[in-house]
Amino acid sequence: MADQYAQTGDDKRPTDLPVLRWEEPAEGPVLVLLDQTRLPREEVELVCTDARGLVDAIRTLAVRGAPLLGIAGAYGVALAAARGFDVDEAADALAGARPTAVNLARGVRRAHDAYRAGLGQEGDLERAARDALAAARALHREDAEASAAMAGHGLALLDELVPGGRYRILTHCNSGALVSGGEGTAFAVALAAHRAGQLRRLWVGETRPLLQGARLTAYEAARTGMAYTLLTDNAAGSLFAAGEVDAVLVGADRIVADGSVANKVGTYPLAVLAKYHHVPFIVVAPGTTVDPDAPDGASVEVEQRAGQEVTEAMAPQGTVAGFEAGGGYPVAPLGTQAYNPAFDVTPPELVTAIVTEWGVVSPVTAEGLGELCARSRQVTIK
Amino acid sequence: MADQYAQTGDDKRPTDLPVLRWEEPAEGPVLVLLDQTRLPREEVELVCTDARGLVDAIRTLAVRGAPLLGIAGAYGVALAAARGFDVDEAADALAGARPTAVNLARGVRRAHDAYRAGLGQEGDLERAARDALAAARALHREDAEASAAMAGHGLALLDELVPGGRYRILTHCNSGALVSGGEGTAFAVALAAHRAGQLRRLWVGETRPLLQGARLTAYEAARTGMAYTLLTDNAAGSLFAAGEVDAVLVGADRIVADGSVANKVGTYPLAVLAKYHHVPFIVVAPGTTVDPDAPDGASVEVEQRAGQEVTEAMAPQGTVAGFEAGGGYPVAPLGTQAYNPAFDVTPPELVTAIVTEWGVVSPVTAEGLGELCARSRQVTIK
Repeated sequence: MADQYAQTGDDKRPTDLPVLRWEEPAEGPVLVLLDQTRLPREEVELVCTDARGLVDAIRTLAVRGAPLLGIAGAYGVALAAARGFDVDEAADALAGARPTAVNLARGVRRAHDAYRAGLGQEGDLERAARDALAAARALHREDAEASAAMAGHGLALLDELVPGGRYRILTHCNSGALVSGGEGTAFAVALAAHRAGQLRRLWVGETRPLLQGARLTAYEAARTGMAYTLLTDNAAGSLFAAGEVDAVLVGADRIVADGSVANKVGTYPLAVLAKYHHVPFIVVAPGTTVDPDAPDGASVEVEQRAGQEVTEAMAPQGTVAGFEAGGGYPVAPLGTQAYNPAFDVTPPELVTAIVTEWGVVSPVTAEGLGELCARSRQVTIK
Repeated sequence: MADQYAQTGDDKRPTDLPVLRWEEPAEGPVLVLLDQTRLPREEVELVCTDARGLVDAIRTLAVRGAPLLGIAGAYGVALAAARGFDVDEAADALAGARPTAVNLARGVRRAHDAYRAGLGQEGDLERAARDALAAARALHREDAEASAAMAGHGLALLDELVPGGRYRILTHCNSGALVSGGEGTAFAVALAAHRAGQLRRLWVGETRPLLQGARLTAYEAARTGMAYTLLTDNAAGSLFAAGEVDAVLVGADRIVADGSVANKVGTYPLAVLAKYHHVPFIVVAPGTTVDPDAPDGASVEVEQRAGQEVTEAMAPQGTVAGFEAGGGYPVAPLGTQAYNPAFDVTPPELVTAIVTEWGVVSPVTAEGLGELCARSRQVTIK
């Protein structure tokens, strides 16, 4: 891709994950992303010089995770503005790059609104670009603050729901620093428990088909020194049956008005298992994930992804001979059709609590969620 | 392995799957197996010349599936006898090659008993070897007959439980001709429905970590011309939620006295999902799978397999550059610990019916199972 280039970071391995940052070299501003498709094997940065490059990075999941997508989308608008591209066109392309996470469209809109306000009557392009960047930076900072607040609320909730501490937490997909401007959502709660000496074990579901659990959550858990164990998604049943799970903690890609939660495919089966085994099922997500315009689970558009992700064994992008770059090796007969929804929807009756930076909703009802959002004064449930 | 050799079958692709056969070339008798680790890409046969080669084939899953393991085990004893090896030692090694499937130990015992009876007072080695082989052949033939009977009983049961026909059946792992002397267990029922024009779709769970669904069930479905769709195990939740599953059909590795069912890991979560969605959950297995000596699910020894199966992306054995033979490519950080039970146990209250060649047990209770087995006069529940 002409509008992205890779820079290896072998010589510098910072303590904090270099997930996303804005830089202004002499050649013009760029958005630098950690290429998540190459983890855990390589820490390679991807440099986007325009919105088109960022759209590609979003589609290939080089950058992913609902809160981070919002931040990336906002910076993408700022990038188009700073580079003198058509900002309206860039905003449209970015907002539509993936359909399920509401944060992406919302982040784009925030920077785009700031841009348009900055333009004003006189069409001040320079001020508009500055304002779009300021909006992206504000969102980035607020998301980091939200992470810290969620971690605090989540830890207090665990203390209440699971007496005795020393939690064995099951999580799915990836919800740490790699999805966030801060330390993440569900993972940030587990990390807070770890720091408090209260995490006995993090059970990490591998999260087929793209293995975000194995590749990314295990990577973050290893970096932070947690006791963690990886499992296939379908081995979670045995863990529940053996009484080895004290709570399930997951993030969310979208939470709609009735409290239904869209999250990575495989979340719903865990919620059903948790209910059957009387284990708390807790969703941790920033307020920007709440979509008051979608009334219920049926109104969530679930992204269907290529069947190839299922019919081929995946290797991290371009690193194994015999694999196409970012592709795989057939494990099913040629011509096999696959059903590959990226997300599923968990109804509110299966969710013990939703934790946001504004506090906790439990039981999960439209009213409870509406009140929390109203208190926040940022999102209003209609 | 010195005691196995591969022969490629590129030039001959028979209609029936050449899963396992006894041959007597001039060099001495051999057991010829289809190497299931190489499917669906290659149909390669593995030739075992002694029990040790067969034990290796069982451990590496070149031959697998509870009923087929029983048949293979019986032939393994016959092979040791025909080749003049220590038959008691061979029987011990074969019976212990994998712990969960009761059929393996039972098939070995049947041939071993025939061998010892054949020896008689006079120690007639030739007659003993002949009798062991006859016992293996009888088991092989009976298993094929059992497949056909299960298919008939299962189809009648579907007709009763799912009014209107045109079934959308979800299955897990592999339970067709590749596990059987005949057309299999759960898969044989789906195949009977297909032949009767009553199968709308077979949903095939990929079955991590070793992908027996993607590699083997999809292969068998494609060969038989069924409408089938592959999915990751964790996408089953979305199918249930969308009302796209009329029945779940799975095989079993062991059914114990109280009706608990040990089967491939991932079976139990499907049973919980089926219960939650009021979808029939049907286990199809031959009577040899019933273990009256194990009182309940807690008494089943569940095989724990190497974590590598989870922490590495697997490719079919030895076919991709960059992969070790039969091994994989790391997808999780080095040093990641994995929880990798090969099976899980589904309690009888989640099982709508157990279908055997002798008929159907529903509801599933110790009494019902005991009565069915008593009628068969082959297995007695204590």
